[in-house]
Amino acid sequence: MPLDLTASSIELTRQICDIESVSGHEKALADAIETELTRMPHLDVLRDGDLVVARTNLGRARRVVIAGHIDTVPVNGNLPTRFETADGVDYLWGRGTVDMKPGVAVALKLAAELTAPAVDLTWLFYDHEEVASDQNGLARLARTRPELLAGDFAILGEPSNGAVEGGCNGTMRFDVVTRGKRAHSARGWMGENAIHKAAPILRLLADFEPETIEVDGLAYRENLNAVLVGGGVAGNVIPDECRIHVNYRFAPSRRPDEAEAKMRALFEPLGEFELKDLSPGARPGLDDPLAQEFLAAVGLEAKPKYGWTDVARFSVLGIPAVNFGPGDPSLAHADDERVPLAQITACEDALRAWLS
Amino acid sequence: MPLDLTASSIELTRQICDIESVSGHEKALADAIETELTRMPHLDVLRDGDLVVARTNLGRARRVVIAGHIDTVPVNGNLPTRFETADGVDYLWGRGTVDMKPGVAVALKLAAELTAPAVDLTWLFYDHEEVASDQNGLARLARTRPELLAGDFAILGEPSNGAVEGGCNGTMRFDVVTRGKRAHSARGWMGENAIHKAAPILRLLADFEPETIEVDGLAYRENLNAVLVGGGVAGNVIPDECRIHVNYRFAPSRRPDEAEAKMRALFEPLGEFELKDLSPGARPGLDDPLAQEFLAAVGLEAKPKYGWTDVARFSVLGIPAVNFGPGDPSLAHADDERVPLAQITACEDALRAWLS
Repeated sequence: MPLDLTASSIELTRQICDIESVSGHEKALADAIETELTRMPHLDVLRDGDLVVARTNLGRARRVVIAGHIDTVPVNGNLPTRFETADGVDYLWGRGTVDMKPGVAVALKLAAELTAPAVDLTWLFYDHEEVASDQNGLARLARTRPELLAGDFAILGEPSNGAVEGGCNGTMRFDVVTRGKRAHSARGWMGENAIHKAAPILRLLADFEPETIEVDGLAYRENLNAVLVGGGVAGNVIPDECRIHVNYRFAPSRRPDEAEAKMRALFEPLGEFELKDLSPGARPGLDDPLAQEFLAAVGLEAKPKYGWTDVARFSVLGIPAVNFGPGDPSLAHADDERVPLAQITACEDALRAWLS
Repeated sequence: MPLDLTASSIELTRQICDIESVSGHEKALADAIETELTRMPHLDVLRDGDLVVARTNLGRARRVVIAGHIDTVPVNGNLPTRFETADGVDYLWGRGTVDMKPGVAVALKLAAELTAPAVDLTWLFYDHEEVASDQNGLARLARTRPELLAGDFAILGEPSNGAVEGGCNGTMRFDVVTRGKRAHSARGWMGENAIHKAAPILRLLADFEPETIEVDGLAYRENLNAVLVGGGVAGNVIPDECRIHVNYRFAPSRRPDEAEAKMRALFEPLGEFELKDLSPGARPGLDDPLAQEFLAAVGLEAKPKYGWTDVARFSVLGIPAVNFGPGDPSLAHADDERVPLAQITACEDALRAWLS
């Protein structure tokens, strides 16, 4: 199933969506991308698993990395795609139409078209983004061939409703555990109720007032939530354990160890603290001249990104990075994923104008 | 495997324990009991499923019912029984040695022996006590042939460490449910956290001061406990439901509808209230003259029973009932169930003295 890189970005989005590529099954799409890009004399193409990287080497002073993942979450009766119109807006509907095949289509079209861009370009199409972090294709490349990720600025084509979203909050998950002593509930006073001991923990969470922190000109809104709670043994037993799983989303100006210390100070007086995972945020890096030029060229103001995305991986490598792509992120993974066609074209035009 | 009703109550306990009779497999033991009792000219014997009832009909002014279940919880490497000595105390060890085959053995021995008791006697050996209430043999008889349960006083041979335990608390289970609105936890402020809303419910439970209520001279200690808690969808989703399962044990002087109204008044302001089950308690009925005589004869003071037992079924029929049997109730269902031999003999002697 060959791709036609001369087709419109809308048509190309549809072609790419209709090549099913749920995480772990990216090969057909990676093959098609590799085949087309290899035809282009201005690009050096490399394959690593189901990741394809294509680079210009024009000796420009600066290099921009444009990346997107080619996998999707599982299909659920929403392929093949179809065009539909609602309230006067034209959409492409189906799995991947938001997360994130229009971004891939725009990148692929411009990779073929821009034979003499203003900066050197690294186009990255990677696998396994929608699954556990240790399988992530971009993370793999960062570990094994970091030189291929080198650049002065990076754009990730994740859905951002066509806006520019900079950086992302960090995220941390931990359990707060209370302990008690089992007893038959007919003689409750012989035990010690671990669920009752969770009262001050939930009270603290309910009363907590999360901060909003400005980082490089963007306001990052933090938040702190119990996301899971579980405790108890049976209907007639005083529970000896209660476990509250908490998610803290923290501004990228906090170092992970600072965020952890803040949480420990709050919760350790109330229960056992078990850290489960901790990922740093990414500063938006919008004070970088290249980022400023990009914002001026696309004529958009940047907004903070709240969800954790792979821009944080670039941040760790010291490369400022933003999300910029078609599609409403709140429809990502939804069964009725759909993208307004005008957003695909707008992204394509903005990127072309800046890179030409 | 015939039973020898002329053996000592200790030896008879052992014989009965070694006929395995996990709930649903009572037939062999029920057969053996029926066979022996049918030989006794002073008893009218009836069989109903695996329940055996044997009655004297001597025209006495009063009738006492003495009942015990013949089933056990599943065996777990603890049959056949064995004798053992620890800290100078002689025990019979194994499944059923506490709950409640020594009580059955004492009843069986006295059923055979007491040909001319001071009151008419109804001896009840019933099935399916250790499983769901709708299978309970005693409950079945109360539904289908309540005249066979008629009496002025009842003794249930459940383990009570050889003490007399009167009546029992009622028990009620209900869920208190809080609701919220799902959202991605990266944008927690777009949702509504149902787990956080549970804070005042746990606070109320933790602060609740249960009453102790005197009923017919016995002090019933109530209690109120969260026994299970659950809520949440995933590590990155604001939870839209949290469910707290609460057990309220209430004094037998409260009617079930009063207990329910009390709980609704407490919890309905804080969440949705879902009643799960509700069983009335049983008044000890120790002001009854027959009960007073029994206490005087055995020379023991009565204590309140906290766990719900089948004495409540007699209470519903208007028959005062107490628990009186060998064995430590806290070892019931334990894999190291064992009964002090002296308690078996003491119970036998006390009952014989009163009934003769």
